[in-house]
Amino acid sequence: MSYFRKNIDKAKGYEPGFQPKRADIVKLNTNENPYPPSPRVIEALSRMGADQFRRYPDPMGEEFRQVAAVVHGVRAENIMCCNGGDDLLNIAFRAFCDESRPVAYPVPTYSLYPVLAKLQNCRAIEVPFDGEFNLPVKLTKTRAALTIVCNPNAPSGSFVSVGELASLADELSGVLLIDEAYVDFADENCAGLIKDLDNVVVLRSMSKGYGLAGIRFGYAIAQADLIAGLMKVKDSYNVDAVAIALATAAIKDQEYFRQTTAKVKEARELLVEQLRILKFIVPKSHANFVLAECRNCDAGTIYGKLLQRNIYVRYFDLPGLSDRLRITVGTSEQNDRVVLALKEILSEQEPEQAPKGQSQPVAD
Amino acid sequence: MSYFRKNIDKAKGYEPGFQPKRADIVKLNTNENPYPPSPRVIEALSRMGADQFRRYPDPMGEEFRQVAAVVHGVRAENIMCCNGGDDLLNIAFRAFCDESRPVAYPVPTYSLYPVLAKLQNCRAIEVPFDGEFNLPVKLTKTRAALTIVCNPNAPSGSFVSVGELASLADELSGVLLIDEAYVDFADENCAGLIKDLDNVVVLRSMSKGYGLAGIRFGYAIAQADLIAGLMKVKDSYNVDAVAIALATAAIKDQEYFRQTTAKVKEARELLVEQLRILKFIVPKSHANFVLAECRNCDAGTIYGKLLQRNIYVRYFDLPGLSDRLRITVGTSEQNDRVVLALKEILSEQEPEQAPKGQSQPVAD
Repeated sequence: MSYFRKNIDKAKGYEPGFQPKRADIVKLNTNENPYPPSPRVIEALSRMGADQFRRYPDPMGEEFRQVAAVVHGVRAENIMCCNGGDDLLNIAFRAFCDESRPVAYPVPTYSLYPVLAKLQNCRAIEVPFDGEFNLPVKLTKTRAALTIVCNPNAPSGSFVSVGELASLADELSGVLLIDEAYVDFADENCAGLIKDLDNVVVLRSMSKGYGLAGIRFGYAIAQADLIAGLMKVKDSYNVDAVAIALATAAIKDQEYFRQTTAKVKEARELLVEQLRILKFIVPKSHANFVLAECRNCDAGTIYGKLLQRNIYVRYFDLPGLSDRLRITVGTSEQNDRVVLALKEILSEQEPEQAPKGQSQPVAD
Repeated sequence: MSYFRKNIDKAKGYEPGFQPKRADIVKLNTNENPYPPSPRVIEALSRMGADQFRRYPDPMGEEFRQVAAVVHGVRAENIMCCNGGDDLLNIAFRAFCDESRPVAYPVPTYSLYPVLAKLQNCRAIEVPFDGEFNLPVKLTKTRAALTIVCNPNAPSGSFVSVGELASLADELSGVLLIDEAYVDFADENCAGLIKDLDNVVVLRSMSKGYGLAGIRFGYAIAQADLIAGLMKVKDSYNVDAVAIALATAAIKDQEYFRQTTAKVKEARELLVEQLRILKFIVPKSHANFVLAECRNCDAGTIYGKLLQRNIYVRYFDLPGLSDRLRITVGTSEQNDRVVLALKEILSEQEPEQAPKGQSQPVAD
């Protein structure tokens, strides 16, 4: 006999990417920023005193909301602080979905969405992307209470234009949550949509562009009514005092943010180029990772061989993904190491199989 | 039209105690520890580097689990780290309760439980305590999927013996969650029950006894099967790297913990004595707060007058509580200030009404 609800017993739980403790590895498996957070973050840390540990944090993280509002040209009432972007996803599922209120999202995408649907015991309507990861037209027809579009999408790195998402939101009867966890590495974003659309929630993370995955801080941007409803579902003290102080210091330093994200974007373009030379099919990425499709080679095997060389990338043994590797964009040195290792592995494995002169142009 | 589920629209959301930013106040409203956390915590903070911010935290908080396991004489697999005790309560509601699986708890108690029941859309069976806050016999008859006993109870400070809770767990068909957020100030606790009882979850908090309310850290103690099921529901990275490091440093320093909690307990006994001299009815407290019943005076008015003096206590305008003030045990100086202020307020208010010689003995 189980004490748990049936849907919980059946759920597998989300499998996070491996977090090795060793320092002597190339860790390109969980899309962390290769650069440390702004020096202002370390300064903010040094100002933390015992009283901030002893007392409960500000339940709303007002200090952060004020700064984020300025950055996005909205008001503090349009911002809700969260314990990482995943906290917002949890809150959204609990606020909008249940047995009779399904969620919909295009696939393949962030593998946490189906896990949260199981936990909330709601139906998940998965609408397949086409080969170019265009927004599926069918998404407007699902009647879901909550539609999620991860943009840039994980693990493809593809991007749906702001205009297309505005049209989608306009057609939906439910809420559109745009998961912009990776948008810091894209050229445009959907924060402005909340001005005119009362059913849009934009998810942001401090884990990627701001290099703060360790402190768990994300936030929602939405119209005040939506934020007020989501607030009811969040834990009253969901973000801690240290996280609020550090996230505020980081988002204040927009200059550092621009510099480091620009470096990652530059390194990404070079990495894509090098991988294509090795005959991987690599679509254009708008995120801090690339999805490399392995032609005439086995992605799972390569993943294992990279591991043996202390290089961690991500491999998903899932339909449509099992022939690909998701590689986080690291520093130039890290990217060079993974490219060199791949070159070695490919030449070891299939010295004569590699088909020469068959490379196809890849749409950018 | 609302985008939210009906139960969310109807929910009011939990109202946390006010967190004033000013330093020149006596803050005895949210049961924080008057003493700072162990000096080891500040040392641990100074060891935090940019890499710990940049990278995702250990999803399990293994470092903390190992130390907590030693402290409680259990194994790491019996511990689950949480983003504050409230995170565990959320996880438990989602794991065990739904429309057909109710929760039960004695009342009055922690006012978050009914809020979480609303959010999870499950029935809440509230069984009233008697006047002495004894465990209600009816609690064994509810057939609830989850029964919660807050012990020591908030806001009464009363305590149900470990033996009684063991018997209760034995009789229940569902899970018994013992919310020991305040147990650091009691003389015994239920951690040992998990050895023999497969349906007991013990909730612990680092917010009270360890003086770490600001970093949001709590944990569950239970048999490995229960922990494994709860793990599926938790956010994969629910606790951040700073919180893990600081909580681990704090729980390691058991000597400091014993010293500071002993000081709070001593100050509590003195505060109770002084309040009784002012003719408040104050039952024995096993927590770091006392519940003072106002005789021939209005608790709400006194609350307001204390506020005017920059003294914050907690007032609940709820049935069975509206004639009482919940006062956190502070330092001796803070307790003296609140007692002096109460003395002044009472003598101002009702110089001739105060009935002399009518004091009744209060059961301890």
